[in-house]
Amino acid sequence: MLPTGLTADTRVATLNHLAARLRILSVRSTTEAGSGHPTSCCSAADIVATLFFAVMRYDPKNPKHPNNDRFVLSKGHAAPLLYAAWAEAGAFNPDDLLHLRTLESDLEGHPTPRLNFVDVATGSLGQGLNAGLGLALNARLDRSGYRTYVLLGDGESMEGSTWEAAEAARHFQLDNLCAIVDVNRLGQSDPTILQHDMEAYRVRWSAFGWNALPVDGHDITALLDAFERAARTKGKPTVVLARTLKGKGISFVEDKPDWHGKAFKKGEEADKAIAELSTRLLPSASKIDIPGPDPLPATPASVRPIAPPEYAPADSVATREAFGAALIKLGEANPRIVVLDADVKNSTFTDRFAKKFPERFFENFIAEQNMIGTAVGLASRAKIPFAATFACFLTRAYDFIRMAAISRSNIKLMGSHVGVSIGEDGPSQMGLEDLAMMAAQPGVVVLYPSDAVCTHWLTALAADHQGMVYIRTGRPKTPILYKNDEKFTIGGSKVLKESAKDRLTVVAAGVTVFEALKAHDELAKQGIAIRVVDLYSIVPIDRATLLACARATNNLILTVEDHYAHGGVGDSVLAAVNNDGVRVHKLAVTEIPHSGKPDQLLDRYGISARHIVEKVRKLTA
Amino acid sequence: MLPTGLTADTRVATLNHLAARLRILSVRSTTEAGSGHPTSCCSAADIVATLFFAVMRYDPKNPKHPNNDRFVLSKGHAAPLLYAAWAEAGAFNPDDLLHLRTLESDLEGHPTPRLNFVDVATGSLGQGLNAGLGLALNARLDRSGYRTYVLLGDGESMEGSTWEAAEAARHFQLDNLCAIVDVNRLGQSDPTILQHDMEAYRVRWSAFGWNALPVDGHDITALLDAFERAARTKGKPTVVLARTLKGKGISFVEDKPDWHGKAFKKGEEADKAIAELSTRLLPSASKIDIPGPDPLPATPASVRPIAPPEYAPADSVATREAFGAALIKLGEANPRIVVLDADVKNSTFTDRFAKKFPERFFENFIAEQNMIGTAVGLASRAKIPFAATFACFLTRAYDFIRMAAISRSNIKLMGSHVGVSIGEDGPSQMGLEDLAMMAAQPGVVVLYPSDAVCTHWLTALAADHQGMVYIRTGRPKTPILYKNDEKFTIGGSKVLKESAKDRLTVVAAGVTVFEALKAHDELAKQGIAIRVVDLYSIVPIDRATLLACARATNNLILTVEDHYAHGGVGDSVLAAVNNDGVRVHKLAVTEIPHSGKPDQLLDRYGISARHIVEKVRKLTA
Repeated sequence: MLPTGLTADTRVATLNHLAARLRILSVRSTTEAGSGHPTSCCSAADIVATLFFAVMRYDPKNPKHPNNDRFVLSKGHAAPLLYAAWAEAGAFNPDDLLHLRTLESDLEGHPTPRLNFVDVATGSLGQGLNAGLGLALNARLDRSGYRTYVLLGDGESMEGSTWEAAEAARHFQLDNLCAIVDVNRLGQSDPTILQHDMEAYRVRWSAFGWNALPVDGHDITALLDAFERAARTKGKPTVVLARTLKGKGISFVEDKPDWHGKAFKKGEEADKAIAELSTRLLPSASKIDIPGPDPLPATPASVRPIAPPEYAPADSVATREAFGAALIKLGEANPRIVVLDADVKNSTFTDRFAKKFPERFFENFIAEQNMIGTAVGLASRAKIPFAATFACFLTRAYDFIRMAAISRSNIKLMGSHVGVSIGEDGPSQMGLEDLAMMAAQPGVVVLYPSDAVCTHWLTALAADHQGMVYIRTGRPKTPILYKNDEKFTIGGSKVLKESAKDRLTVVAAGVTVFEALKAHDELAKQGIAIRVVDLYSIVPIDRATLLACARATNNLILTVEDHYAHGGVGDSVLAAVNNDGVRVHKLAVTEIPHSGKPDQLLDRYGISARHIVEKVRKLTA
Repeated sequence: MLPTGLTADTRVATLNHLAARLRILSVRSTTEAGSGHPTSCCSAADIVATLFFAVMRYDPKNPKHPNNDRFVLSKGHAAPLLYAAWAEAGAFNPDDLLHLRTLESDLEGHPTPRLNFVDVATGSLGQGLNAGLGLALNARLDRSGYRTYVLLGDGESMEGSTWEAAEAARHFQLDNLCAIVDVNRLGQSDPTILQHDMEAYRVRWSAFGWNALPVDGHDITALLDAFERAARTKGKPTVVLARTLKGKGISFVEDKPDWHGKAFKKGEEADKAIAELSTRLLPSASKIDIPGPDPLPATPASVRPIAPPEYAPADSVATREAFGAALIKLGEANPRIVVLDADVKNSTFTDRFAKKFPERFFENFIAEQNMIGTAVGLASRAKIPFAATFACFLTRAYDFIRMAAISRSNIKLMGSHVGVSIGEDGPSQMGLEDLAMMAAQPGVVVLYPSDAVCTHWLTALAADHQGMVYIRTGRPKTPILYKNDEKFTIGGSKVLKESAKDRLTVVAAGVTVFEALKAHDELAKQGIAIRVVDLYSIVPIDRATLLACARATNNLILTVEDHYAHGGVGDSVLAAVNNDGVRVHKLAVTEIPHSGKPDQLLDRYGISARHIVEKVRKLTA
C-alpha cells in the first residue's frame, strides 16, 4: 500500500514506476540466466505491481503469516516477475535475482515452495486457480479475513481444470477469491484461441457466475478500481480480465509472436530493452508502505490421539469402509483434518465424515483435478486434507499429483475400488495402475491395507506423516485379520504365516492377502509349507523382513497383486531384494480385464488362490 | 427413421413405445445382472429412442460403416440403454441383453470397443465429447456427411475436459457435432451442482459459442424439433439440454435420490417397475425403418513406404526434432497420418507437419485431455493420430490414456522434454514418470530413441503398429549414432560397445546412452571394459539380448536413466531378467530435481558419465 496522503496521481505514478522496476528486474535476471520468459513478465507487471504495492495486505518478512493475503502465480513461467515483486517488497535482496535458474539458487525456472513465499508449485498451467480455491476455502474455515489473488495466463483458460475451479468457486460463493487473467493474446506457438476477444472472456466467466471485470491491464487506475470493486463484491468471486500486451514496454517485442520463452541477449539487445523500460522510472519515487496482516488468534487448535478401532474378529468390512470410519475418529481427534470427495462419497464412505463435520467436508462433484488442486491449497495453510475417489479416477488428476509432489504437499489421497475385484462394472472403474503412478513420485508414501484394523491405523499414520500419502483400498468386504491394538508402521509389513519348513514366501497386499491365506491352507494339505507376508506398506518397503523371509524360504518369493504387472507390488519387491540373490516371481493382471463376478475375475486374471497354489507347486517342484 | 407417410402423432406414439421398450430392456438386463444403473437409463430413454429410430442414419448390421452417423454414450453407466437400442435396431438378438455384465458376454458394465458398435470406451465421465470432437473432425477430413451425437450426463458437465471440447468444437465450427446433456438432476451421491437450473446450463454453453437448445427431454416432439434445428444450424455445434427425471417412468424411483447404480430386485420390485413401464407400450407399433448411410467413395487412399532419413554422421539433432522431421515423411507416405499438439508445436517440432499438411494438423491449444480424446476419436475412424506435447503434460491426460488403452486405440503419443536434461526450466517441465505411467497400461508399446536415425525409424514403426505407442524424446541436441539405413524393431535393442573382456553391461536409453559411451571410454582408459546397450524399446523389451549381454559380463547389469527410479528403464530390465540370476543395479533420479544447467543436473542427480564410472568401478572391484 502506498502511504496515505499521496494524491491519486502520485500513487499511480509510483505504481507505474514500480511496474517498470519489476520489468527491468525480470529482463535482467532472465538475460543473466540466458533463458526464461521476460515478455510474459512484462504483460503482467502492472497487475503484479498494483497487487503487491497497493492492494494486498501482508508481511514481506514473514510470507507464511496465516493472515497474509495470498498470491498464486498460476502462469508460473512469469516466475522472474514474482521473484522481483517479493524482492522489491523487501523479502530478500534484489541482487539475488541475478542467480535465477541456477543450481545454487531457489529462484527456479518456475516457482516451487522451496521458496517460503510460494504456497504451491506452478508451471503446469491450469492449476493455480484450483489451489487458490483451497486457499480461499481455508480462510473461511479459519475465519481469517485474508484474500486470495490468482494470476492466470490467457492460454491456460483453455485447460478444463480452470473451469472446474470456476464452477466450484461460484458454488462456494467465494467472494474472498479474486482471479486475474493476463490476456496478452499470445501463447507459446500461436495466438491463443480467443486472442483479444475480451467480450468472449467476459461472457464465459459471467456465465459461470463470476463478477467479471474487463480492464486495460496496463492502466493502473483501472486495475485499482477493479480490485476495489472485487473487494466490495459479496457472494461471488471476481475475475479481473486484463487486456495486456506481451512484452509491454519494450517496443521491439511488444505484441509480437516468436518471443515466447526467450531471454534478451546480453549486450545491445538487453540494454535496449532496459533503456526503454527505464524511461518509465521516476527520478525519486515515494516510499512504499505495505500494510500488514491481521494479528493471529490467541489459541491454536488442540490435537488428541485418535481413538482405536472397535472391530470384532468375525466382522467383514471393506477397507474403503474402514477408511471412512477412521476419518471420523481422526476428525474428532484433530481439527486440522479436512476431507474432499468427488461425487462418490457413498462409495468411499467419506459421507460419514461429511455428515459429522459438514464444515470440514468439501464436495467437489465430478472434478478430480479440482479436488486435488483444492486439497493442495488447503494443505499449504496447515490443513491435513484427505481427498478420496475411485483409484482409477485419480489418474484424471495425475498432473496435479505430480505438481503436489513437487510442492511437497501434505495431502493424503485415498483411491478405492482397486483392481479386478470390483467385478461387474468393468475395466473403466478398476484402479490397476495407481501403484505405478503414485510410487513413481519421489517422497510419496504408498500404503495398501488388507483389513479394517490395518486401514484404521494406516489412515491415522497418514495424518501424522508430513508429506503426501496414498492409501489404496478395495471394494469387497474382507475378514478382520488383526487385533484392534495391533501396531503398524509406515515401511512395515506383517508375516501372517510362518514355519521352519516354509519353502517359499508369498507376498500379497489387499485382497490378495486372503487369496494367499487360502492358498497357504490348500498347500498345507498337500504338504507344502509357505510363508505369507501382508505387505501393507509399498513405499517405503520393508526390505529387512522381505529379505529375512526370502533367506528362510530358499530365496524364493512369489508376489500376487490386484494391479497391472508394471510398477506394482511385484516390481517394488523386485527392486528391493533383487541384488541379494532372491528370485521374485509375479502374479499380476497382464491384460485389460472384462466385466464379471469378482471371484471369477480374480481367477480369470491369474491372481486367485488356485493360481497361487499352482505357481507355488511349480516353483517348489 | 419411421416410415414416411406416418402422421406426426403416430410417429411420436411409436417413438414413445420404443422408449418404453428400451426402458424395459434396461430394467430387465440390470435386474438379471444384479447390478447396473437402470435409473440413469430411464432418464435418457426418450433421447436415445428419438436418435436411434428417427434421427440417425446408419446401418445397424454394419456399425463400422464409415458413413454411419456416430453415437457416443459419454455417460457410459447407461450402457444397458445403449445395448437395448442397438438390439432393438437389429444389431443383435435382444435375448443377449440378459447376459449383461457377465464374463461370457461383451455387454460389459460400461461400453468398450469389444462391441463393434462402440467406437470408444466410456465409463470415466467427461471423455465422450472429446472423442466426439475427433469423430466430427474426421467427417470433415473425409468429406463424409455423417453426423456425430454425444450423450452426456449432467454430472460430467463438471469435468473440465467437457469445456475443453466445448471451446475446441466452437473454434473448429463443427456444425456436424451435436451434444445432448441428460439433465436428470441427480449425481451418484448428491444432487448435481446445477440441479435442474436449465438456464444456468444454457448460458454456459451459449457463452462457449454453442447453439444451446433447452428442451423437455421426455417430450419426443420437442426432441425431434431440437435435432432438426441442430441439423439446420451452420457454423457452430449444437447442444440439446434435455431436462429429464432420473428413473423416469417408474413412479417409486422417479427423481428420487439413493437410486443411483441400483438394479431392481428380482421379483416384486422389478415386476412393478416393468408393469408401470409396460403401460406405455402400444398394442401394435409401426415397423421402424432406419435410413442407411451414404455409399462409400470408390477409391481408398494409397500408402507408400516412408522415405529414409538423411542425417550426416557429424550432425547433432535432438530426438524431438527428428520426430518432427519423421512426421513429414510419414505424412507424405500415408494420408491417414494426422497430428495433434497442445501449443508446444515449436518445441515438439510438429509445426513442420502443420505447415506442410495444415488440413491434417489439429492445434489443441493448452488442453491435453482434449487432445488425447480427439485423437482417440480420430483413431476410431481409421486415422493414425500422433499427439505430441511435453512428456510431463501427458500426465494431465492419464485418465484419457487409460481409457484409450481400454479402447485398444491406435493412437501414437510423443512426450518430449524428458528428464533433468531439460535443465533450467525446473521440475514442473521435466517428464520423469512417463515410462512408469505408459508402461503400466497393457498393450502399450513404449519406445525411447537416443539419436535422430533411431527416432526416424521408431516413428515409422509406431505408425505401422496396430495399437497405442508412446515415443519418449529429449530436449538437448545429441550426436548421430546410427547409419541412415540401420534396422530397428519394436522390441529390439542395440549393443553399441562390446568386447570379450567386458565385465559389466550398462543399459541406457535416450540421453544416458551418451553418458554411458563417455563412461565406456573413460573406463577403457582405466583398463575396465564394459558393454553398452541402447535399450530403445522399453515395452516390449529385448530380453534375449539383455540376457546374452549379462551372461557375457558376469551376470551384472547397470541401468542408467533420466527418469524416476520407480517403473522406468531399470525396473523394466529388472522384471525381464531377474529370475535368471542377473543382478541389476540402477542409476536413476530419486528426488524432486532443481533448476540448473542440463549437464550439472545429470551429474547432480547421479546419472552422468562420472557416476556410471564410479558405480562400475565399485561393482567390478
